[in-house]
Amino acid sequence: MKPIGVFDSGVGGLTVVKELIRQLPYEDIVYFGDTARVPYGIKSKETVIRFSIENILFLLKHEVKFICVACNTVSSFALPEIKNHFRVPIVGVITPGAREAVYATRNKRVGVIGTKGTIKSCAYEDEIKQFDPKVKVTAVACPLFVPFVEEGWLTGNVVTTVAKQYLKPFQETGVDTVILGCTHYPLLKNVISEVLGKNVTLIDSAKQVAIEVNKILSNEGLLNERGKGKPACRLGRHDFFVSDNPEWFSNLAERFLGEPVKNVKKVSNV
Amino acid sequence: MKPIGVFDSGVGGLTVVKELIRQLPYEDIVYFGDTARVPYGIKSKETVIRFSIENILFLLKHEVKFICVACNTVSSFALPEIKNHFRVPIVGVITPGAREAVYATRNKRVGVIGTKGTIKSCAYEDEIKQFDPKVKVTAVACPLFVPFVEEGWLTGNVVTTVAKQYLKPFQETGVDTVILGCTHYPLLKNVISEVLGKNVTLIDSAKQVAIEVNKILSNEGLLNERGKGKPACRLGRHDFFVSDNPEWFSNLAERFLGEPVKNVKKVSNV
Repeated sequence: MKPIGVFDSGVGGLTVVKELIRQLPYEDIVYFGDTARVPYGIKSKETVIRFSIENILFLLKHEVKFICVACNTVSSFALPEIKNHFRVPIVGVITPGAREAVYATRNKRVGVIGTKGTIKSCAYEDEIKQFDPKVKVTAVACPLFVPFVEEGWLTGNVVTTVAKQYLKPFQETGVDTVILGCTHYPLLKNVISEVLGKNVTLIDSAKQVAIEVNKILSNEGLLNERGKGKPACRLGRHDFFVSDNPEWFSNLAERFLGEPVKNVKKVSNV
Repeated sequence: MKPIGVFDSGVGGLTVVKELIRQLPYEDIVYFGDTARVPYGIKSKETVIRFSIENILFLLKHEVKFICVACNTVSSFALPEIKNHFRVPIVGVITPGAREAVYATRNKRVGVIGTKGTIKSCAYEDEIKQFDPKVKVTAVACPLFVPFVEEGWLTGNVVTTVAKQYLKPFQETGVDTVILGCTHYPLLKNVISEVLGKNVTLIDSAKQVAIEVNKILSNEGLLNERGKGKPACRLGRHDFFVSDNPEWFSNLAERFLGEPVKNVKKVSNV
């Protein structure tokens, strides 16, 4: 009956929450967005690990049964290290996304887009090679995509021109599958798809990680079964905490979650 | 003989350092960039004040004689509060920029561009009204300009299209003077000038704050006079500290400072 803990550097992790709510409607969720120190994508491994540990300690105060790292940069940089530190099961977005891409590709050429940190870490590449060493990976950082999404530039000439420039290497290497390796990128799906063409499959890590969470909770007997067999069941409770600027978070949240977020609480995580 | 302390959320403050070096070549400078928590422009007043106090405490460890806040967001949000806390003289970028704009405008219509935080604070507007209540101010946030500069998109269609959209209100209100109210913006001077037309005067706060620092140090008898009257004098020493990612800082630094920055040291300011 305990909640699932989810954290991200800011608001992007809400695309993961959206999928968790869709696939696990009876689970309680505690979300933490580190908006005082957002973004993580340009920061060093050492710093991202330090911030992540502080975020997890905050979630543990809420007695979470499971932690979902809803941030590609953290999953790339910090996951092995933070998994070692804590007893609570922790899942990131890299493995589920990589697995799905290897499953989806027909020509064994996969593209990855993400923040500078995620791309520099080679985390997706390493994980894909674990699943299938024959898959060739092309990885490209798209640092302007996050500001575009946060500023609401989701369509139009500007974002299309930038996308064309960023995604050029994929056309050269002929990938048939591209991982959206940042929780903001699903909001640019239309533009990315338009630039890459219909034959390229886009892998949304958010969707894949929710499937993974569902599977693990189910295997470990940790699913919240309050809704089971009841005709009118209570849906899960969702609590949102941030380290700064709850209004900014609330305003952006609807874009990512598909519904408004009220009662965002500002807390200190350090 | 003590150094001048300069701080910013990241790398943008180097445009101020560039002017300080040009105008005060004999002064030693200690620069701190809070790259672990950059950017400040989207964060709350309370958080920006907390970060600024931590940055100043770091600079005070280096026995600075004077502190220059080379960040418009901090100057807008935190200056009155931090001036109250500390004995060391502190100067921000708002007053010098506002004074120069009031001096430069002929039609008493001034524009201001800056981060969301700077614009929301109305700091430039309030300061301009202090100098001349008759001046009409139009203020516009340009949140994509910082990512453009940091990613090196300084010219071309993309940045021009965005600039045209952001700067539209100025053409409607007919301003003849625009304050570049963010330390990153001088790098987009060409594009901004192209969009606004040659008749609009651009005010670079970095230049103005260096003039102010020079004046105050001179009045207070705090100028470093080691170079005075000597034929081959030693120029000032410049030390650069960051809270994260010294390589990222070094790589970007040349774009802002006009010369490479070596030996950037990573330190903790909290």
